[in-house]
Amino acid sequence: MVQVNENYLKLKAGYLFPEISKRVSLHSQKIDVSELIKLGIGDVTEPLPKACIEAMNKALEEMGTIEGFKGYGPEQGYSWLREKIAKNDYENRGCKINSEEIFVSDGSKCDSSNILDILGNENSIAVTDPVYPVYVDSNVMSGRTGNPISEGGYEGLTYIPISEDNNFKPLIPTEKVDIIYLCFPNNPTGATISFDELKAWVDYANNNNSLIFFDAAYEAFIQDDTLPHSIYEIDGAKNCAIEFRSFSKNAGFTGVRCAYTVIPKSLTGISLDNEKIDLWSLWNRRQSTKFNGVNYIVQRGAEAIYSEEGKTQVKNLIDFYMNNAQIMRSELQKSGFKVFGGINAPYVWIKVPDNMSSWDFFDYLLDKANIVGTPGSGFGKAGEGYFRLSAFNSLSNVTNAMERISNI
Amino acid sequence: MVQVNENYLKLKAGYLFPEISKRVSLHSQKIDVSELIKLGIGDVTEPLPKACIEAMNKALEEMGTIEGFKGYGPEQGYSWLREKIAKNDYENRGCKINSEEIFVSDGSKCDSSNILDILGNENSIAVTDPVYPVYVDSNVMSGRTGNPISEGGYEGLTYIPISEDNNFKPLIPTEKVDIIYLCFPNNPTGATISFDELKAWVDYANNNNSLIFFDAAYEAFIQDDTLPHSIYEIDGAKNCAIEFRSFSKNAGFTGVRCAYTVIPKSLTGISLDNEKIDLWSLWNRRQSTKFNGVNYIVQRGAEAIYSEEGKTQVKNLIDFYMNNAQIMRSELQKSGFKVFGGINAPYVWIKVPDNMSSWDFFDYLLDKANIVGTPGSGFGKAGEGYFRLSAFNSLSNVTNAMERISNI
Repeated sequence: MVQVNENYLKLKAGYLFPEISKRVSLHSQKIDVSELIKLGIGDVTEPLPKACIEAMNKALEEMGTIEGFKGYGPEQGYSWLREKIAKNDYENRGCKINSEEIFVSDGSKCDSSNILDILGNENSIAVTDPVYPVYVDSNVMSGRTGNPISEGGYEGLTYIPISEDNNFKPLIPTEKVDIIYLCFPNNPTGATISFDELKAWVDYANNNNSLIFFDAAYEAFIQDDTLPHSIYEIDGAKNCAIEFRSFSKNAGFTGVRCAYTVIPKSLTGISLDNEKIDLWSLWNRRQSTKFNGVNYIVQRGAEAIYSEEGKTQVKNLIDFYMNNAQIMRSELQKSGFKVFGGINAPYVWIKVPDNMSSWDFFDYLLDKANIVGTPGSGFGKAGEGYFRLSAFNSLSNVTNAMERISNI
Repeated sequence: MVQVNENYLKLKAGYLFPEISKRVSLHSQKIDVSELIKLGIGDVTEPLPKACIEAMNKALEEMGTIEGFKGYGPEQGYSWLREKIAKNDYENRGCKINSEEIFVSDGSKCDSSNILDILGNENSIAVTDPVYPVYVDSNVMSGRTGNPISEGGYEGLTYIPISEDNNFKPLIPTEKVDIIYLCFPNNPTGATISFDELKAWVDYANNNNSLIFFDAAYEAFIQDDTLPHSIYEIDGAKNCAIEFRSFSKNAGFTGVRCAYTVIPKSLTGISLDNEKIDLWSLWNRRQSTKFNGVNYIVQRGAEAIYSEEGKTQVKNLIDFYMNNAQIMRSELQKSGFKVFGGINAPYVWIKVPDNMSSWDFFDYLLDKANIVGTPGSGFGKAGEGYFRLSAFNSLSNVTNAMERISNI
């Protein structure tokens, strides 16, 4: 009989969000579901920017004509989109990223998992704790970890705690690790990284021949002008970092699916023969073989984000969600919660009161206030005792939710 | 330094289509490029069906409103689409496939590569020769083969020739193999498989506990009512087969990106502990973790394929391309070529004349007639001496190309 991938059997039962869905479904049987306010999963709620809709309308119209029809596009994305990204997201911030170094895809979740395809299984891996669960699970599934540990986590991974104790700044490891996942602004804690702190990571990576996976999916939410938006703002990052970016959270593309990954041509790995191999070529081969590019209409929509109207509309969306975050922060503080994040990120990270566990607080909030959040422990052992609330919702839902919490 | 995936280094230099692009680019410098007729890559040329455009327009409009906006959809696809597929593509053909067994994705190229994620590396693999290169390359990249063999192919894979000698019917192996890739109507040869022939494969698989990957991307082109469109039309297939389907070639979605994969809940593999593991759950976990679902607008477009108008429009598209194929067959035969395929498939597979190699004939046709085709040897050793021409083009380009060939 066909052998299964044994590594899948190591995975702990519930991926976080399905478990949340299950509990919400059960609770929903007891209440009027219109009463539920979902501040759990980080999904946007506002309509697509008008500029995107218009561009997609035009592209859709083209697809209905002989002259305008587009079949297979380049697996790497259309050059007009890659050039807009290079200019607006990199050149304009002083980063020298060539459009060919940008690979357009259907999502950062896919890219940040698939990137492991091109790397050997021998590499040692470090993640922060708490962490976006996909980083960990994709490593488990591809056989890069040992078994789960009863207190949480998996054998063979290095966990770097981010918590109040270190002011949510991951400490640079004292030993060498080959691959480090960093996500700033951080999901789930909403923490940020300064220029100097990120420089220290880049220096560590270059000194140790390590590779950083930098997830910048939330960069658009940065309000503080002194913070870096891209790891390539740091000198030397082009020799040690791959960056993941997404249109999901800035332009509300979670249901549209478009993202991109930057692999500088200067990045190298090594073969067993000690030969230097450039990672760009490996990823290019991977994408050409196992991926067929992103929908033409979607790429035209993504391009429109970089028009003047598009930029204004995206800024308005960000302002809208960040206003929510600000309300959440101040109302939660008034209600006596210890609150982190929510200043340069759409996530508010609260300390669970009265020594409750994260899941107990999840059930408590669901039961007492019909509010769905995300238990911090779902993101890792060091997330225990914390709770994530997302600012992605309507203003009325957010104010309503805060009022309910203050009244519990 | 970070270790690369050593298996990528085994890959032979050029994936077929990039090599074709390179030669066409070189040739284009010498000619007026409007003279080129591309019958190479199997990419559609006709506009999207009107029913799809209308449905997508409506969905796009929804995405611009608060009430209609959709964020993350189910990773497995929306149930309304999965139900339409189950009813129209399966129930109506007498196959009992539940909508939950259908996983909507952004392409069969992705699915037929990614499916290996859930299976162990110890399984023995068989492919036909010639074969769609992605099946082979995805096995090489994931470490399921040895090194390339100088005469073509890779060590560790079982190759099952399909050629004139066996009337393009792959012979069932005399030994046990764990996984077999079958594609019918066949890419590249245009060959078909009968009910009885497919039943023999299903019986083989069930007798040997093997798993069949059945690629039915071209089923819509079947004209002969006695041929099966799905492997699930064969009794017992739900215990031994995964089927890949695509909207790329029937509704012209190559630039839109939508496909689906069927994993029956009755399918099992085995763990090292000899425990039976259901493959549906593994794939569900894979998709939930490493994929974020297909664009909402696209899924509404795919749904429209199953409306009455959509069905008629798709049939017209198929008829259009199959009329091209018929013209190609008869004109090529008149020009003295030995011609296969093109009756239930959009590909015409010709025997290269005068003992030329496939690549020599490629250069010859490009040079003498500005026609781009695909060398049979690009699909495997047994494809040497053959050449693929695709019927995906305008009627005028097809007749023009046939005239040019007859005048060489």
